[in-house]
Amino acid sequence: MEKLALEEVESSLQHLDGWEISNGKWLIKKYRFKSFMESIRFVDRIAELSEQENHHPFISIDYVLVTLKLTSWQAGGITALDLELIQRYDALFTKK
Amino acid sequence: MEKLALEEVESSLQHLDGWEISNGKWLIKKYRFKSFMESIRFVDRIAELSEQENHHPFISIDYVLVTLKLTSWQAGGITALDLELIQRYDALFTKK
Repeated sequence: MEKLALEEVESSLQHLDGWEISNGKWLIKKYRFKSFMESIRFVDRIAELSEQENHHPFISIDYVLVTLKLTSWQAGGITALDLELIQRYDALFTKK
Repeated sequence: MEKLALEEVESSLQHLDGWEISNGKWLIKKYRFKSFMESIRFVDRIAELSEQENHHPFISIDYVLVTLKLTSWQAGGITALDLELIQRYDALFTKK
């Protein structure tokens, strides 16, 4: 899968909430929860999806704040798969 | 609970594996796993303990590498509770 032009990525992100580009190659978003265990349950759902797709975001958990950071190492940037997955992350957030 | 002197913390860390002091107030360690799902299962065990003790480390998951960072906000540094908890984290790592 090929790396997308940043203009194309930016255009896709306009339809999404809270996603930003970092260092020209990462998609990054912070999700806020009502409790620590809600954060953890979200991370568990993200982990399951990531394992199914064999494409894993960097995850950090700062109490009720979960940060996801995604890129495609092999492509050296952001691909269509990354853009698809971040929408599935958002869906898992809504589903909580 | 009171913040400990750094000399006291350093002395306790000598008996432990891989724990370091960061910025004079954080205890930090990186744990390496054989798979992403092993990382996640470890994080789940850490989360359960943290919730029981109501004392939560900062957690990051970089595929098979989990970083834990702990401090006592109210004490403004590292306390005896932090030193106790990091040993329980290590025990949860060994138990995998």
